[in-house]
Amino acid sequence: MRGAAIQLSPVFGELEDNRKRAARAIEEAASLGAELVVLPELCISGYVFADALEARALSEHVAGETVAGWSELAAKHELTIVGGICERDELDGLHNSAVVVDKTGLIASYRKTHLWDREQLVFAPGTQQPPVIDTDHGRIGLAICYDSFFPEVMRGLALSGAEVIVVPMNSPVTDPPFLPVPVEVSLVIASAAVNRVFVIQADRTRPERGVGWAEASCIVDPDGRLLAGPNHGRAVLVADLDLGLARDKSYGERNDVLADRRVDLYESQLPVPPVA
Amino acid sequence: MRGAAIQLSPVFGELEDNRKRAARAIEEAASLGAELVVLPELCISGYVFADALEARALSEHVAGETVAGWSELAAKHELTIVGGICERDELDGLHNSAVVVDKTGLIASYRKTHLWDREQLVFAPGTQQPPVIDTDHGRIGLAICYDSFFPEVMRGLALSGAEVIVVPMNSPVTDPPFLPVPVEVSLVIASAAVNRVFVIQADRTRPERGVGWAEASCIVDPDGRLLAGPNHGRAVLVADLDLGLARDKSYGERNDVLADRRVDLYESQLPVPPVA
Repeated sequence: MRGAAIQLSPVFGELEDNRKRAARAIEEAASLGAELVVLPELCISGYVFADALEARALSEHVAGETVAGWSELAAKHELTIVGGICERDELDGLHNSAVVVDKTGLIASYRKTHLWDREQLVFAPGTQQPPVIDTDHGRIGLAICYDSFFPEVMRGLALSGAEVIVVPMNSPVTDPPFLPVPVEVSLVIASAAVNRVFVIQADRTRPERGVGWAEASCIVDPDGRLLAGPNHGRAVLVADLDLGLARDKSYGERNDVLADRRVDLYESQLPVPPVA
Repeated sequence: MRGAAIQLSPVFGELEDNRKRAARAIEEAASLGAELVVLPELCISGYVFADALEARALSEHVAGETVAGWSELAAKHELTIVGGICERDELDGLHNSAVVVDKTGLIASYRKTHLWDREQLVFAPGTQQPPVIDTDHGRIGLAICYDSFFPEVMRGLALSGAEVIVVPMNSPVTDPPFLPVPVEVSLVIASAAVNRVFVIQADRTRPERGVGWAEASCIVDPDGRLLAGPNHGRAVLVADLDLGLARDKSYGERNDVLADRRVDLYESQLPVPPVA
């Protein structure tokens, strides 16, 4: 299975142009043979909202124009597409959401459960766990940006059988820069290695209203090796993922990253997750 | 507080020489102003045991020669010293252990709970949680090598109030090498950042019986920034640690890496740790 992480450069508030930018990048990923294509968080609206009113004006229902366009592209190229939208729910509530689209249309959506900074002023947090979704291109676990900073989330997705965790992201850059790679890339490496899963993370590029981005898009294998990224600027990163590797949790000859958990010891302090 | 990670090069089985090597490195760390000094796993015996019989011949009781020597050095320089020994218990069982020594002598010991590969043929796994210990030089959480690959362990130590997690390590090198840094360094960066703690990891150098080492010694701050390391060869890495930073779990203006956990959502699937 070939996966792609699209490090996109949307422009704040230009919904139609951003849909075209995303579509062009998806076409480019398809032309490179990608089957699972991951776009950033809030990649159609932009991120740096002044307030909820502004965000509402840039929001859409899950079954909206973005999903309609991605459904067409998914059908045309036999893709699974994951990306972030500014979701308006039936009661006019706003959510920082990700949608999963395939040739049949929308197959899943998820509302970010760990809200970062000013997102709390705009969005209602999700009330459902980050999900694992069976797709034509593997069992996909879904986390949005700051969600992935919680090892509980990444472990939970792995325990639920995710073969590849996809992380739409908009990570504001920090000063001074992290060396040798953005901390968000180290987090992906660690999450992949300790859970023996693939991770595809798609971050933003191009400053927006004075906010720069970590450009932490990358694809990492279950050993924790970088298969693609991080890169500066707009990028369509692709890599081949042998998903069978993520179903095998053994690590060397005598170890297994899930079975080796000492649940007996975490118990008094950290309650026991069931093995999926 | 100034911390040190000693990337040591013991020689298999040379107990007396290795005690001298460790003592020289501790003296060197003290001369650099270090107060908390971390040495590698099994740094007196060596690591690549042919079998349990050989390990037994190189083992010592916790209150043995190594701790006696480190106690003298700790008293002389007002240090807290942490390092790994091959422990023989009262019933002749063997453990891959770490000891914590200060000017008063032995203050804590811990038996590794997650055994890596052939360690399972030699050692009995510990039955007690990785501990948090109040010392003259901060609240220290203790994990040995593969223990630190379990986010449950590192999260548990942070929830129990660890300001600095120390990780004595002997990590066999993997081929091809990880880029840009050993995966064991990425794990430290991630553990530090998601828990907002300092981490001091002390790994080995110099091949032993054909096994090379990742040389993943490093000191990382609660943002996930490398303060020292990784380096090749024997090294005494030092860095200044403002432990107050690790008591503050806030992250930006509106976030807190422990309080932001969505325990309500992990509950059905994942551990629900109490807040310390």
